[in-house]
Amino acid sequence: MPPAPFDFTSLLPPNLPPAAARWTGRPKYDFTGGNNDPDALPLDGLIAAADAVLRREGRTLSTYGLNSGPQGYRALRDFLVNKLKRDAGIACSTDDILITSGSLQALDLVNHTLLARGDTVIIEEDCYQGSINRLLRLGVTPVGIPLDRDGLRIDALEAALADLKRKGIRPKYIYTIPTVQNPTATVLPLERRAALLKLASEYGVPVFEDDCYADLTWSGQRPPALYGMSDHGNVIYIGSFSKTIAPALRVGYIVAPWSILSRMLAIKTDAGSGALEQMVLAEYCAAHFAKHVPVLRRSLRAKLVTLMEALKAHFGAAAAFDDPQGGIFLWVKLPDGVDALQLCKLAQAVGVAINPGPEWSVNKAHARSRLRLCFANLSHEEINQGVAALAEVCRREFGVP
Amino acid sequence: MPPAPFDFTSLLPPNLPPAAARWTGRPKYDFTGGNNDPDALPLDGLIAAADAVLRREGRTLSTYGLNSGPQGYRALRDFLVNKLKRDAGIACSTDDILITSGSLQALDLVNHTLLARGDTVIIEEDCYQGSINRLLRLGVTPVGIPLDRDGLRIDALEAALADLKRKGIRPKYIYTIPTVQNPTATVLPLERRAALLKLASEYGVPVFEDDCYADLTWSGQRPPALYGMSDHGNVIYIGSFSKTIAPALRVGYIVAPWSILSRMLAIKTDAGSGALEQMVLAEYCAAHFAKHVPVLRRSLRAKLVTLMEALKAHFGAAAAFDDPQGGIFLWVKLPDGVDALQLCKLAQAVGVAINPGPEWSVNKAHARSRLRLCFANLSHEEINQGVAALAEVCRREFGVP
Repeated sequence: MPPAPFDFTSLLPPNLPPAAARWTGRPKYDFTGGNNDPDALPLDGLIAAADAVLRREGRTLSTYGLNSGPQGYRALRDFLVNKLKRDAGIACSTDDILITSGSLQALDLVNHTLLARGDTVIIEEDCYQGSINRLLRLGVTPVGIPLDRDGLRIDALEAALADLKRKGIRPKYIYTIPTVQNPTATVLPLERRAALLKLASEYGVPVFEDDCYADLTWSGQRPPALYGMSDHGNVIYIGSFSKTIAPALRVGYIVAPWSILSRMLAIKTDAGSGALEQMVLAEYCAAHFAKHVPVLRRSLRAKLVTLMEALKAHFGAAAAFDDPQGGIFLWVKLPDGVDALQLCKLAQAVGVAINPGPEWSVNKAHARSRLRLCFANLSHEEINQGVAALAEVCRREFGVP
Repeated sequence: MPPAPFDFTSLLPPNLPPAAARWTGRPKYDFTGGNNDPDALPLDGLIAAADAVLRREGRTLSTYGLNSGPQGYRALRDFLVNKLKRDAGIACSTDDILITSGSLQALDLVNHTLLARGDTVIIEEDCYQGSINRLLRLGVTPVGIPLDRDGLRIDALEAALADLKRKGIRPKYIYTIPTVQNPTATVLPLERRAALLKLASEYGVPVFEDDCYADLTWSGQRPPALYGMSDHGNVIYIGSFSKTIAPALRVGYIVAPWSILSRMLAIKTDAGSGALEQMVLAEYCAAHFAKHVPVLRRSLRAKLVTLMEALKAHFGAAAAFDDPQGGIFLWVKLPDGVDALQLCKLAQAVGVAINPGPEWSVNKAHARSRLRLCFANLSHEEINQGVAALAEVCRREFGVP
C-alpha cells in the first residue's frame, strides 16, 4: 500500500484564500473579464515587430533587464513618455516610469508600498473587482463613493473625507478610474478632476489613478489625466497595454515621483518583467499605436451597439443602461427583483458567463440587480445568442423580462 | 512659487525596505546575477518560433490565459511533462504544473502559501541571496545547514530537525537546491537524496526543491529530482527557463500536488504570466531544447575553465575553489583576512561587480572571505581582465595575493 499523501493543511498560515477550482474551459458565451477583440488584434504588426526587434537586439535577452536596468525596457518607456504627453497631458521622463507585469502587478506594488492591515482607502463605490479583492485581502477598509453619470460624485467625496477626518482617520489614497470607469464606463469631466485634486490636497491624501481604459473613448478625446493636472506630485498613475493591444501580454506601468517610485521598485523583486513582451510592444507601438487604436475603437463600438440592441430586443425596458463613452463593458441595471449573483450562477449552467454587480461594488444593495457585460471578445452573433440565452434564464427564474 | 512636493513618508507602512537606488548602468566586468551566455542564446530558433507560433495562434493573445486557463500555456506544460520525465525522473501531468513569471514568482507563491511571520524553515547555509532575503522580509527564521563537497550534510540536517523538535518547532519546509547548488555548485548524491527524503518524512516537514540549474551539469547526467523520488507528495518543485534559454524571459514553473498547488494558484492574482514568452518557449523548446542545452553547456564549461585559469594566474593559491560539476558560477574562498563585503565595494569602484559571500549565506563568519563569481555573461577576455582587476584591488587593500 502506498503511503498516505502528505497533508499540507496544518502548515498553512491564517487568512489564506480558499483553494482555486480546476479550470474547466471557457464558457460558450463569455461576457466576463477584460478579454479583447481578437479580430482587432494587430497580429501582422506584432509578428513583424517581434522579428525586427529580436534580430536587432535579441542577444540582450541573456541579461536580466536587457540593457535597460530594473525599471524596464528603455524603448518602451521612451514610447510611453511621448504617448502620455500626447494623450494624457502628462509630462514625465523615462526615469519616472516603472514597467510592470500587467497593471495588476502595478496595483500590488502601490498597495504594498502604502498599505498596512487596518488602513482605510477611498474608492469608487462601483469598482474593479480585482481592486476591491486586493484591499479586503490586505485587511484594508475601502470607503465607497457613489458615482453618477459623470463619474465620482465630488460632494460625496468631500463628505467622506470630512467624516473620516472627524474620526481621526487619514485615508491612504483615493483610488479612481476617472476615464472610462470600471464598471460604469463614466468619464470624469475636467472640472470634477480639478475639484478632486483640490480636495486631495486639502486633506493630504494622495490620488491613485488607474487609467487602463483611457485610450478607448469613442471620440478619441479625453480629459487630461489627474497626474498631468496635479502640480505637486500627489498622484500615482498606472496604465496598461492589455486594453489597447492584447491582455495576454502582461505589460503595465506605473508613473510616480521618484520619492515613492523608488520604494515600489525596492519591493519589485521579480528580476524584471517579461522582456520579450516589452520589446515587441515597444517596437510595434512606436510606429503603429496611434493608427491602431482608432481601428480597435471602431470595432469595439460596433460590438457595443450590437450588445445594446440585443439587450433591447431580449430584455426590453427591463435592462437599463447608459450608452457608454468608451471601453469594453456595459453596466446594466435589471429590475430590483433580480438577484444578479443567482442569475450569474444559473446563466453559467447554460454556458453564459457574466460579472454579477455585487462582485464589482462595495455597495452590495445598490449592485444587487446590476451586472457587467464585456463585449469585446465575442462575435456579433455570439453577443446576440448570449444575451438571448441570458434573457431566457432570467425570465425563467425571476419572471423578467 | 510652486507648492512643495507631496511627502509620502508619513503614509508608508512599517517594515518597508529602503528605497531603491537609481540604476547607473551595468559595470564593465559584471560577475554578479544569473545573466547568461549571449553567444549561446539560440536567437535564430527563438525568432523562428515567435513567427510560427504567432502566425498559428496569435489571436489567442486577445484572451487572458490564451485558451489554456490560469495554469499557463498548455503546450509549454506539455513540453515540461516530457522534459521532467526524461531529465529529472518526475512523473507528472499538465495539471500538476503552474507556469509562473520566473522562478522568483514561484518562490513568492510557495512562501506566501506556507509561511507566516515567526515561522522557521531549514535552508542550505550558503544559499541563493533572493531566497534568504525573502525569508527575512517575511519575518521567517532560516536555520542554515552546512554543506560539504557533496552538498547538504545529512548529519547536520538530522541534528537540526531533532533540535527544533526538542524546542517544539516544526519547520515549514526544507529548502534545497540539490543539483548545482547556488552558490556552491555541489550536486547532492542519490543516497543523500534518499536520506533527506527519509528525514523529511519522519519529521513531517515538506521539501521545497529549487531545480533552476539542474540542466547545466557538464556531463549532462544528474540524479533524479527529489520530487520524482518521493512516494507521498511531500515535495514542491520549482524550475525555470532562465538558465537554459534566457533570463530576461521571465518564465518559471511550480510542480506540486493539487492539494497545495491549488492554494498557490488562488494567490496568483496576476491574470496569468506573459503569454508571448510562454508561446515562444513552448514552440522553440519542443523541437530544439534537447539539442540546445549541450551547446550551452560546452560554452559555459569553456568560460569556467577560463575563469579558473585566470584565478590561478592572478590569485595563485590565495583563491581556493572546487572545480564545479556544472552551472554558471564559482564559489571562491580567499584568505581569512579578506573581507568580501569590503572587497566588493572597492571592486565596484574599478568596474568589477562580484557577489560577496555574506550576502549568499546565513553563516556570515563562514562566508566572510568568500565570493560568488558568475562567468556566463562575460567574454573570455573580459573574464581575464576582470579577474586581473579584482586581484589588483584585493592586493592593494588586503595584501593578498
